[in-house]
Amino acid sequence: MDIKFVKREKLKEKPKGDLGFGVIFTDYVFNMDWDKDKGWHDAQIVPYEGVNMDPASMVLHYAQATFEGLKAYKGEDGKFYLFRPNMNAKRFINSNKRLCLPELPEDMFIEAIKALVKVEKDWIPTGEGESLYIRPFMYAKEVKLGVAPSKSYRFSIILSPVGAYYKEGLAPVKIYVEDELTRASLGGTGFAKCAGNYAASLLGQVKAEKLGYTQVLWLDGVHRKYVEEVGSMNAMFLIDDTVITAPAGETVLPGVTRDSVIHILKDMGYKVSEEHLAVEDLMKAAKDGRLKEAWGTGTAAVISPIGELFYKGEEEVINNFETGDLTHEIYKRLTDIQWARSEDKFGWREEIKMD
Amino acid sequence: MDIKFVKREKLKEKPKGDLGFGVIFTDYVFNMDWDKDKGWHDAQIVPYEGVNMDPASMVLHYAQATFEGLKAYKGEDGKFYLFRPNMNAKRFINSNKRLCLPELPEDMFIEAIKALVKVEKDWIPTGEGESLYIRPFMYAKEVKLGVAPSKSYRFSIILSPVGAYYKEGLAPVKIYVEDELTRASLGGTGFAKCAGNYAASLLGQVKAEKLGYTQVLWLDGVHRKYVEEVGSMNAMFLIDDTVITAPAGETVLPGVTRDSVIHILKDMGYKVSEEHLAVEDLMKAAKDGRLKEAWGTGTAAVISPIGELFYKGEEEVINNFETGDLTHEIYKRLTDIQWARSEDKFGWREEIKMD
Repeated sequence: MDIKFVKREKLKEKPKGDLGFGVIFTDYVFNMDWDKDKGWHDAQIVPYEGVNMDPASMVLHYAQATFEGLKAYKGEDGKFYLFRPNMNAKRFINSNKRLCLPELPEDMFIEAIKALVKVEKDWIPTGEGESLYIRPFMYAKEVKLGVAPSKSYRFSIILSPVGAYYKEGLAPVKIYVEDELTRASLGGTGFAKCAGNYAASLLGQVKAEKLGYTQVLWLDGVHRKYVEEVGSMNAMFLIDDTVITAPAGETVLPGVTRDSVIHILKDMGYKVSEEHLAVEDLMKAAKDGRLKEAWGTGTAAVISPIGELFYKGEEEVINNFETGDLTHEIYKRLTDIQWARSEDKFGWREEIKMD
Repeated sequence: MDIKFVKREKLKEKPKGDLGFGVIFTDYVFNMDWDKDKGWHDAQIVPYEGVNMDPASMVLHYAQATFEGLKAYKGEDGKFYLFRPNMNAKRFINSNKRLCLPELPEDMFIEAIKALVKVEKDWIPTGEGESLYIRPFMYAKEVKLGVAPSKSYRFSIILSPVGAYYKEGLAPVKIYVEDELTRASLGGTGFAKCAGNYAASLLGQVKAEKLGYTQVLWLDGVHRKYVEEVGSMNAMFLIDDTVITAPAGETVLPGVTRDSVIHILKDMGYKVSEEHLAVEDLMKAAKDGRLKEAWGTGTAAVISPIGELFYKGEEEVINNFETGDLTHEIYKRLTDIQWARSEDKFGWREEIKMD
């Protein structure tokens, strides 16, 4: 891939102190355009700045847009790594198929990320738990009001240095089981990382927060009975000695962290069951003391312990609202691999050679 | 509402010949911004041009965006009209509630439209079946990667002169009943005119077109059994002497044309039943000759006759693939009201006084 580089006049000042999440952006952005005649063309790394967008651009009206999220880490060995970027590349292809956006080949996806991160190497933060969040995204560019796939698209990557999600270690959160609103249904876009899924989830989140909860546990859109995702993370439940999580690929996003945690759990000797778990069974297991731990998995927070579940007037506290041992252990094992503090036994780290 | 006007240097040339749909835009756009501190502010009519959009603008990533669609007509009496704009204003409020966007009061919505159309009066086309399509829309403006309602929004209105949808009169189309993909489910956003719904519908449309059909008939997202919308229109079926259409408000968009046609049908003495019609019953009615006519309703095409239905390998032609008498009649009655060729017996026309 031939990537044109346009140097910016003056670099931004690097942030000091708390980085937050997704609020600080680096000096450059990767852009590449697609149309039917030329396919992918005009790959370039240019100064981060606003793009000129026609008010009739399709993305603003019909949300034909997808994205990915991953991180670059400075390892304890001084090298720089991505974590399983091929998983993001593959999911991006699947999302784009569902939303009728063009396919971006896996190797181009990863090459573009590496090229941009290399340019922005000095932006990779090195504090405890810090990393460089990478946001590849694609959107419809055609200027037309009419419901049809766009004839042109832009693929961009932006970077944001981010802090540790939990500054004082893993902290359990209170979860509201949403029994009216849904985020996905069979035949819909639940498995795709598309913009519209997130807009649809906002009202549930706002409702939960108003009631004093941090996030929503979503039930399936057909029966409003089976547990699916928690907020925008995958959800896992340790019941007896089995970890249960919803099957991914139809209504549930196939999370990279989800998949990695499943591997780690199996490696630790745990049984993992990908099954449709009824919320009534979950609540009963909690009441009977069989639900020992619960957590969400996602790129941003990595692992988010669930300390309490509220469903239809019933409240169940999990593990005395403390982060469980297994939750701690998988967090440690996963982040140790990500920051190169441990052996890469699954072959998940992908080094970015900085030359 | 205090609307600032910024004059453009040079007006565009007005189009000649075929206008198409949603491809030509007028000289000006209405913009107004919202944030928590100021509420709605900075209402202005400015030259139509691209806006500067940060690549991390929330709308590009999370599709927190809604829109409306209506038309301005030059009536046969020489006056200018909107058609039931209060219906669009109310639906916009409901869409925005579901997607967590701020409420735009009904009177401001209509005032903004009238102000812009007045400025663009000369853009209202006067050929047979021509009108000025009005696209109000609202989107998240905050620059941040994080799934939460945006802290700032833009409301815009753009205008596009459009031609008659069917240049040679109403033409029946072939419809593919989609039995895998779905567009909406209970607890979702089906009733809202939000950007994400349209992105989710594209794949079904592409699939139907590949198979030689013009549009998709969507089934409900829970059972994939009950008939809902056709493409992005509401669907109506004349079976025996009753017109059946899906109930609006949960998974089905409450169309303004839908509501208007229901009023006209009842006024003509027809029974109208808003019910969940199973696709098997629909196909059986077609086979038995009891399905006499079928059509879609929407702002763009007004009425779109359905000439054929394909469902799971079975094909049923409706009314010999000809536009039915009732379909013709409701199209005539509705467009006669819109273009002021008949008495406004329902009080639907709203004049835009041009001074």
